[in-house]
Amino acid sequence: MTEDIFTDEYFMKKALNEAHEAFDKGEIPVGAVIVVDNRVIARTHNLTELLTDVTAHAEMQAITSAANFLGGKYLTGCTLYVTLEPCQMCAGALYWSQISKVVYGADDTHRGYKVMGAKLHPKTQVVTGVMAEECSVLMKEFFKKRR
Amino acid sequence: MTEDIFTDEYFMKKALNEAHEAFDKGEIPVGAVIVVDNRVIARTHNLTELLTDVTAHAEMQAITSAANFLGGKYLTGCTLYVTLEPCQMCAGALYWSQISKVVYGADDTHRGYKVMGAKLHPKTQVVTGVMAEECSVLMKEFFKKRR
Repeated sequence: MTEDIFTDEYFMKKALNEAHEAFDKGEIPVGAVIVVDNRVIARTHNLTELLTDVTAHAEMQAITSAANFLGGKYLTGCTLYVTLEPCQMCAGALYWSQISKVVYGADDTHRGYKVMGAKLHPKTQVVTGVMAEECSVLMKEFFKKRR
Repeated sequence: MTEDIFTDEYFMKKALNEAHEAFDKGEIPVGAVIVVDNRVIARTHNLTELLTDVTAHAEMQAITSAANFLGGKYLTGCTLYVTLEPCQMCAGALYWSQISKVVYGADDTHRGYKVMGAKLHPKTQVVTGVMAEECSVLMKEFFKKRR
């Protein structure tokens, strides 16, 4: 029964906390966590502005961080929770990592991997729309503030 | 007339030197350089094994390195030379960087961005097949050695 708290929503809330951290730093508010056996092994948020680096998306840092933690470059058995649909760069990195599951919140109909034509690994299970509204509202707030 | 030495082959040779460095380290032999105004501002090679990180492709490191050098995250005005067709991760990163030109050597008909469906930025000029034979031979040597 104790495992019941570890839902996709439970971990997406942690990713959303990371997205809020990004928001507070003036970064596009995307957050991610990587989980293995119900344990968070990486938590990251977008840092492209702070690091002056287009590759510093939340997912990219999470993949590097999780691989460091595990001591191996493959993320089989792991799940990524990310507040926004990954872009083609991040989808490509996730592909190479052979991660077992990707859960994302809001769709990115403009630059998400689906509309761009990129692919996740065929073995990767994908769950979409988890806390999509909360994830999406944060993004809209951010861009409203910047206008 | 002095500018005539700065051909695509001239810079691809430098990328190929980097690929040889990767080869010598037991890494899949892919090398890259980024050039602005005929000046090399980043030179990198694949380090996925050494860093235990699927994101450590030559191109990814070159993008980060060039942005550091330039002090800005956009690579407009820059050209990337890479010995192998970029994968979808690297194509995605190049997309975000808005790099002006990408020159690659050998095609990657298996995991290259084209066959995977990913896209470079519409403003990015692409030149293919520069020293393709040399770039391809090095890859074949590597995989022959590993068998």
